[in-house]
Amino acid sequence: MAVVNVTELLVQSALKDAYIGKGRLTCDCARCVEDIKAIALNHLPPHYVSTDQGVAYVKAQYIDPQLQSDVLRELAFAAQTVSSSPRHIEGS
Amino acid sequence: MAVVNVTELLVQSALKDAYIGKGRLTCDCARCVEDIKAIALNHLPPHYVSTDQGVAYVKAQYIDPQLQSDVLRELAFAAQTVSSSPRHIEGS
Repeated sequence: MAVVNVTELLVQSALKDAYIGKGRLTCDCARCVEDIKAIALNHLPPHYVSTDQGVAYVKAQYIDPQLQSDVLRELAFAAQTVSSSPRHIEGS
Repeated sequence: MAVVNVTELLVQSALKDAYIGKGRLTCDCARCVEDIKAIALNHLPPHYVSTDQGVAYVKAQYIDPQLQSDVLRELAFAAQTVSSSPRHIEGS
């Protein structure tokens, strides 16, 4: 049994589906992707659940439009922030 | 490279050192411990970092008295909440 932050799952899948999968990131190196995730997650409320109740709760969260639109809003901000000042080493 | 919520690390070690290690929980079954963690984490600001910068940042966090006292305050509230209405099955 462990605790899981549902918001982290939503950010992960939205980043994959709406950005990486569509080639919408200026740079998708591991450093930039993790920095985008960290910035977005630090601007979103945590939703920790303990795993036995996780599956049902996670499903309910995935269809919660408000949290999803919050996640997309914060991802857009984070992607813009990282794109304008990436921490990766150029050409790496 | 992955993102880590520093607050989760602090809650984990404070729960172990200040509660479980000192026998201060009414019940320390996995269900109660995870519920206490989830409740505490949902009342604390996330501090996500990407792991390459994690070690140094995590150390700085561990000696940040304000976040530590916030963690202890929320753990006390969460332990009280779970102790008064545990979700485990009695005698399990």
